Amino acid sequence: MLIQNARQGNITPEMKQVATSESVEEQYILSEVSRGRIIIPLNRNHKKIEPIGIGKGLKTKVNANIGTSRDCTDFDEELKKLETSIKAGADTIMDLSTGGDIDEIRREILRRSTVPVGTVPIYQAAIEATGKKKAIVDMTVEEIFNVIVRQAEDGVDFITVHCGLTIEAANRIKNEGRLMDVVSRGGAFTVAWMIHNKKENPLYEHFDRLLDIALSYDMTLSLGDAMRPGCIADATDRGQIQELITLGELAQRALSKGVQVMIEGPGHVPIHQIEANIQLQKRLCHEAPFYVLGPLVTDAAPGYDHITSAIGGAIAATHGADFLCYVTRSEHLRLPTVEDVREGVIASRIAAHAADIAKGVKGAMDRDVAMSRCRKKMDWEGQISASLDPERTRLLRDSRAPSDSDVCTMCGQFCAIKILNREENWEF
Amino acid sequence: MLIQNARQGNITPEMKQVATSESVEEQYILSEVSRGRIIIPLNRNHKKIEPIGIGKGLKTKVNANIGTSRDCTDFDEELKKLETSIKAGADTIMDLSTGGDIDEIRREILRRSTVPVGTVPIYQAAIEATGKKKAIVDMTVEEIFNVIVRQAEDGVDFITVHCGLTIEAANRIKNEGRLMDVVSRGGAFTVAWMIHNKKENPLYEHFDRLLDIALSYDMTLSLGDAMRPGCIADATDRGQIQELITLGELAQRALSKGVQVMIEGPGHVPIHQIEANIQLQKRLCHEAPFYVLGPLVTDAAPGYDHITSAIGGAIAATHGADFLCYVTRSEHLRLPTVEDVREGVIASRIAAHAADIAKGVKGAMDRDVAMSRCRKKMDWEGQISASLDPERTRLLRDSRAPSDSDVCTMCGQFCAIKILNREENWEF
Repeated sequence: MLIQNARQGNITPEMKQVATSESVEEQYILSEVSRGRIIIPLNRNHKKIEPIGIGKGLKTKVNANIGTSRDCTDFDEELKKLETSIKAGADTIMDLSTGGDIDEIRREILRRSTVPVGTVPIYQAAIEATGKKKAIVDMTVEEIFNVIVRQAEDGVDFITVHCGLTIEAANRIKNEGRLMDVVSRGGAFTVAWMIHNKKENPLYEHFDRLLDIALSYDMTLSLGDAMRPGCIADATDRGQIQELITLGELAQRALSKGVQVMIEGPGHVPIHQIEANIQLQKRLCHEAPFYVLGPLVTDAAPGYDHITSAIGGAIAATHGADFLCYVTRSEHLRLPTVEDVREGVIASRIAAHAADIAKGVKGAMDRDVAMSRCRKKMDWEGQISASLDPERTRLLRDSRAPSDSDVCTMCGQFCAIKILNREENWEF
Repeated sequence: MLIQNARQGNITPEMKQVATSESVEEQYILSEVSRGRIIIPLNRNHKKIEPIGIGKGLKTKVNANIGTSRDCTDFDEELKKLETSIKAGADTIMDLSTGGDIDEIRREILRRSTVPVGTVPIYQAAIEATGKKKAIVDMTVEEIFNVIVRQAEDGVDFITVHCGLTIEAANRIKNEGRLMDVVSRGGAFTVAWMIHNKKENPLYEHFDRLLDIALSYDMTLSLGDAMRPGCIADATDRGQIQELITLGELAQRALSKGVQVMIEGPGHVPIHQIEANIQLQKRLCHEAPFYVLGPLVTDAAPGYDHITSAIGGAIAATHGADFLCYVTRSEHLRLPTVEDVREGVIASRIAAHAADIAKGVKGAMDRDVAMSRCRKKMDWEGQISASLDPERTRLLRDSRAPSDSDVCTMCGQFCAIKILNREENWEF
């Protein structure tokens, strides 16, 4: 178990690998893992993946959501998204499948993935309830935990569990009034269950049982934000912050049992509220890694939510968010295509990279300096290889080839760089 | 002349129109125009365009650059870009043509545009020098001013003039050392001219002559940032700030003569330096409107600079930038296509809109609230019409039509909104 090892002063191979890939001291990783400020999500049943660290002082990481839906059950397309995401630079994958044989697609993704894989077990529990001709709200607590154990046994590295959605938080949403109520899918299942069963959220009630399962597989808990705002008008309201307080308490309980934990965050947040959201999470959750979904800085740009979330993600990561969940241009409109997934990962990587420069992450600017030196030398192959997406760089340049290979078709012979490269001595 | 009218207390039809479209008091527009904190770029020879205001307290505006290059001289394509930009919501257009018959394309753009049009006259002066078999550095001061007068006479509403590029600023760049030297095209022409002719920048030397021309056409000066950083490593260096100090002095001289003026800004700036850049400009230039080119928050994402600039533009505008020059995904690689232009305008509008929400511009959130109400009601036609790009919203949704028309193919029957819309009473 990673945290136990860290607390006993044992530097594990995973810690070593993370220290190397992040260019930090092994002792630093050990110390931050033991305090819960860095996590290395890796189920003991999941072999052959590259461990990654998420948290304080490390490079900002990017997650790509993939998975089938009821209307789109093409496994091959989802496996293509897996491959595309990893190739585009996703650090983790979440399988959010809700269509077809959920066990089969998850197991295939776990087999093929070279990066950590996360899931949201409540989805499968809900689907299996409907498969038994029951309503979602009729799923039993045992059925929920059975799915969690099954997924843990399969080797899922981290699971989203909406444990902070309590009656207290739900009542705050209802009393204050919201435009969009609950937009988290797992959150909606859970609230509906709580209303129908007149009971507290089972994942809150039975949190210790969840911790025992997580501990036995060394599976990381991603404490979900069921109450995240679904529009910027709802951002940072009482329900959201009430849930965050609870998530901080639960994270502390997880850590004291030695379970790795991160906190999920919004969602839809206007730019001027992002920094406060990050600072609140860091303080209330004792600097547990923060995994944000976007945030989207406007609700009004469907078809371009990879851009609205890149803006929000860059600002969030600059202020301390550790892990960005990508959003594709298809968000709010359809299940994404493979191309949507590819550009979604790249947009999030741009946000993460720009934030790492702003945060002063060691070596973050190296790529930019390399690019700029190549630009000055008009070395196009060098520019292509320094690019976040080399194939796209080459494709765009080649699609309108210049008559002079030093420059591009934007400026041609009037290229500022070429003109000034001729001027050795600036004497006036 | 607009400023003179404002100073005499005359509310002109242009001021009235801007007050109406911005939902502010006419007296506010008059007062800020007279102080130079709001501009309304409109050449007295340019008829039939909708006046727009740029500056303090107004909605953030977006400019789209179009125009031919030596390698791409297809007028029809550029006219298509004009139409596409305006349809996508660009507030102004700059014609940066450097290929084909420059006078002809500019005049056609001025005839067809329904929004203010800007240019960079030094480009045409340089091109005409090469057309006379001279080097760019051999263009004469008279030739430069001849082009400026010709373009003013044609009705150009604002011109970029790199007046702040002085020997003093150029020496600071050279002494400090830069990765990319000067990447502004007009800046490169001017520096090369200054080196070869051993003379001060003529647009600095003869600034009063420029002011007289601008005043006689009521043409706005956009004081260009020839020294803008071409990579994030060069951002906010001595040369850039030296030029900005000079631009502030020149803006003050322009205002005292009653010439409308705005200041151009970077360029490539890492996220953590953007706020300081805006505050410096606002202080050093006495709150003259700030027109930023991006800024790009990383150099490493060619092919995606519409995204890197949307991140930078959103942050810049949040902190007070008034006017965003779009950047397309083709920047650094090729002359953009019509589709690049379309998505570039949308990306910049997203940045401007998100910043307007953050800045608290009156009514900015209305569109987001309308969208969110439609999402809650599962009113898809309403969502499409509240979108920044309705056609794209419809296209994406229709391309993967759901089996249940209430929802989309992402979640299908597991739509959080649909599930919770069934729950009237939240009682636990």
